[in-house]
Amino acid sequence: MRNQFEKQLQQLNEDLISMGALCKEAVADAMTALLYSDKQARQKAFLTEYEIDHKERDIESLCMKLLLQQQPVARDLRNISAALKMISDMERIGDQASDIADITKYLENSELTQHVHIQQMAEAAMGMLTDSIEAFVKKDLLLARKVMKQDDVVDELFNQVKSELITAIAEESDQGEICIDMVMVAKYFERIADHVVNIAEWVEYSVTGEHKAHE
Amino acid sequence: MRNQFEKQLQQLNEDLISMGALCKEAVADAMTALLYSDKQARQKAFLTEYEIDHKERDIESLCMKLLLQQQPVARDLRNISAALKMISDMERIGDQASDIADITKYLENSELTQHVHIQQMAEAAMGMLTDSIEAFVKKDLLLARKVMKQDDVVDELFNQVKSELITAIAEESDQGEICIDMVMVAKYFERIADHVVNIAEWVEYSVTGEHKAHE
Repeated sequence: MRNQFEKQLQQLNEDLISMGALCKEAVADAMTALLYSDKQARQKAFLTEYEIDHKERDIESLCMKLLLQQQPVARDLRNISAALKMISDMERIGDQASDIADITKYLENSELTQHVHIQQMAEAAMGMLTDSIEAFVKKDLLLARKVMKQDDVVDELFNQVKSELITAIAEESDQGEICIDMVMVAKYFERIADHVVNIAEWVEYSVTGEHKAHE
Repeated sequence: MRNQFEKQLQQLNEDLISMGALCKEAVADAMTALLYSDKQARQKAFLTEYEIDHKERDIESLCMKLLLQQQPVARDLRNISAALKMISDMERIGDQASDIADITKYLENSELTQHVHIQQMAEAAMGMLTDSIEAFVKKDLLLARKVMKQDDVVDELFNQVKSELITAIAEESDQGEICIDMVMVAKYFERIADHVVNIAEWVEYSVTGEHKAHE
């Protein structure tokens, strides 16, 4: 029984890692669609979001099974409940990547991406995502905490992008609509970074038993 | 056993109705906070969002219990799975109401709300929400379908608000930041309407067994 339980926990860990990899893929595709008006990447972001949703449901069922059949305690219980929380953040990252991909339809061949700090912002969010998954895989507390701090960088870039876009609208108001679309894209990257911070906090919780946001 | 099962289904129905009522409360509070710079309403929106999250978890556990212990089939199974879907839309409505409330901090005493069609947009979204809850309570298919159609009105108002805000930024770029905040508010109302459409679709599904978005 115990042996089977450990196998299932191992399975859960692997599933989480592969769901994290899917999130990275979706965000990377959304970035490519945005920066290079790449239609294939856009389509891939949608498909990956679909896969992420599917994965979420699988992991959810596995967690429910573990909770009900094994009645885990202490660290195991913590890992399972952290997993349940983490997957809902991952699922939302998938949603946001797909939302970004959706908006790129309206930004095709626009040069706006080169005039505002959206690439830097996207890369910063992507870097945080990569680090949070690594922190999870390696149970690396320091890396998880680094991720939490990096959020300020994304927030600052978001403010910068917003003010660049305000200037762009003021200078050329017939560009207004695509500027507003770009604000949305920036907002989604900012949200992605927020969910990544949550993931990092759940890594911390599963390692230490303490959860920052709940203190 | 059957009798207890029916009691539990009744409980589920009541819980969903009260979660819907909480959503209406949160959105109404966010609207009040926005239109009248009302700090108390803002605070209430946050508290209600917290209650909504709590309610979601309660309903989720009840559904899991029903699924596992009662192995429901046909219409009962449909109702329970529709409930599970509906609560995640309701939970996001709570999130968005709280996001709107959060932004109202930056819009205090601004007259912008009077110069763009944000009140109309908020009222349209709120009307849809009220109707979708009523459609659920009364299993009213016609009302559910009316809700689905109303989404176009909100989308149109969203476009109008966006273009009003673009003009506002172009005319007075030092108002840019609060205009961008207002775009976000409008986006959240648009998202609320999307989730309300989902709720209406789940009402249709639980009554007819057919789900529009999946056809």
